[in-house]
Amino acid sequence: MATPVPPQEHPASTHTPRYLTGDGAGIREFIDKFDVFLFDCDGVLWSGDHLFPGTNETLAMLKSKGKQVVFVTNNSTKSRADYNKKLEGLGIPSTTEEIFSSSYSASIYISRILQLPANKRKVFVIGETGIEQELRSENVPFIGGTDAAYRRTITPEDYKAIAAGDASLLDPEVGVVLVGLDFHINYYKLALAYHYIRRGAVFLATNIDSTLPSSGSLFPGAGSMSAPLIMMLGREPVSLGKPNQAMMDAIEGKFRFDRSRACMVGDRANTDIRFGIEGKLGGTLGVLTGVSSREDFVEGDVRPTVYLDKLADLLGCE
Amino acid sequence: MATPVPPQEHPASTHTPRYLTGDGAGIREFIDKFDVFLFDCDGVLWSGDHLFPGTNETLAMLKSKGKQVVFVTNNSTKSRADYNKKLEGLGIPSTTEEIFSSSYSASIYISRILQLPANKRKVFVIGETGIEQELRSENVPFIGGTDAAYRRTITPEDYKAIAAGDASLLDPEVGVVLVGLDFHINYYKLALAYHYIRRGAVFLATNIDSTLPSSGSLFPGAGSMSAPLIMMLGREPVSLGKPNQAMMDAIEGKFRFDRSRACMVGDRANTDIRFGIEGKLGGTLGVLTGVSSREDFVEGDVRPTVYLDKLADLLGCE
Repeated sequence: MATPVPPQEHPASTHTPRYLTGDGAGIREFIDKFDVFLFDCDGVLWSGDHLFPGTNETLAMLKSKGKQVVFVTNNSTKSRADYNKKLEGLGIPSTTEEIFSSSYSASIYISRILQLPANKRKVFVIGETGIEQELRSENVPFIGGTDAAYRRTITPEDYKAIAAGDASLLDPEVGVVLVGLDFHINYYKLALAYHYIRRGAVFLATNIDSTLPSSGSLFPGAGSMSAPLIMMLGREPVSLGKPNQAMMDAIEGKFRFDRSRACMVGDRANTDIRFGIEGKLGGTLGVLTGVSSREDFVEGDVRPTVYLDKLADLLGCE
Repeated sequence: MATPVPPQEHPASTHTPRYLTGDGAGIREFIDKFDVFLFDCDGVLWSGDHLFPGTNETLAMLKSKGKQVVFVTNNSTKSRADYNKKLEGLGIPSTTEEIFSSSYSASIYISRILQLPANKRKVFVIGETGIEQELRSENVPFIGGTDAAYRRTITPEDYKAIAAGDASLLDPEVGVVLVGLDFHINYYKLALAYHYIRRGAVFLATNIDSTLPSSGSLFPGAGSMSAPLIMMLGREPVSLGKPNQAMMDAIEGKFRFDRSRACMVGDRANTDIRFGIEGKLGGTLGVLTGVSSREDFVEGDVRPTVYLDKLADLLGCE
């Protein structure tokens, strides 16, 4: 007798995603399946500093139908409050509570999930103010980050002191190294981070995107800050950004929704769509206004449930 | 009829390296096989600033037997002249002509092997003065390096200018990016290097050692400077240091020796000994005063022809 095969919501990405642009009935049916929409932002709601036409109307339509909206970003340089300002600057009505960033995800992971010994609770930060603000909001003590004392050239005395584990340079209470995008990355910070991890600190990254989209091109991303440490240590950090499920767990922990009634919306198959599929959400929605192409969505290894030319095509349900 | 198997000097590292410490006859026989000895330095001749006892006597003994000595280093921060000063500072008689560094190797590769178009001959350097001096010695034009103009924070205007390919930031004559150890590595330099390579520049590294030994510990090495670019680009640079054979070719091109009459001496199986084996030298000599252990040499994947407790044990031939 054959063993019954359990139903699979995403059968190994061999399904053909449904194309919903212009399909009013299909859109209505899709929207009705969900209570919560998780939005990737850049490439979905806007590109760089350019808000896509219809973004606000689409978000308003979803809210008018009682849907919860969450903005999910891997950008670690901004806090949720900073990011809220960015959304408002682009004209998108939002609250800090609707925003979930990788810096916040990392802070929650450190404060609520990692069980650090009492004398190892400090975080050595490679990153910008967004991480610092979120660590403060969770009462996590930290050093490094934007502190000007770390923006200097390494000296011959530093090598000796670091090698000797001198407490004037290596704080014995540091139990975590958290690496995010740092526009002031330098040799000294990398040397300290490496030695903290070698001495037992947990190696975390806000996210490991190798590149940062800006001005229509690409620049070094948070993953590029971790890359030297990964090469030196021969191992990867725990990443708290998409597509890592630690971020999904943190989002669910905060918003307490039913995953089968949630949909992830994004422009990147390998991060956004993968994040939703591996998080076992009820559905995923791809849009063609960012990185992935129709071919990626329809023939790639990671395929959304449905896809649209652009987010505002959801307005076609009305 | 069975095809005859060609003889292999290093039969897939299943041989047991001969241990020569205390074996006077074995040492004499080994030395007599070679005209040239290529020496790795740190871990073989000295450790940090500590010259091993007997180093000078051993080198003098080899020279008295008419052997040619070459010092081969992956250290890209020093020029050959700087490195000669270091050797002399440690009391080792040497000349600049006896030294072969990865910065020199890279400079020779660029000036004599790469066929760059006339309008693409400039090198964008991530690295220190050693690289600059060696590029100058080969009349290779370069920008970047120790130029203070590159030791600054990236600005919002830079993103736009770099993305647009503005010639005020991206010199159109740059055809090579050369990455070595840079104690002043920063985000701006990484962004420029990435964009030069994306625009077609050849991606070279002086060496890809992930770590730099110092003060009895490890610090970020030249490979850690390339790591962000490797992650962003999804490909590796051509490395001109050990164990890459481009360096062996350059050494042979300069010293014009018979490889079967040359021996590589080193403390690291995976770089030094591999370098000699893949270079098809007549022999390799491992010493136990550095990174690799007896177990590495006797049971590892890459095994030297012979090994000694320490280099000065060669004096046991007398």
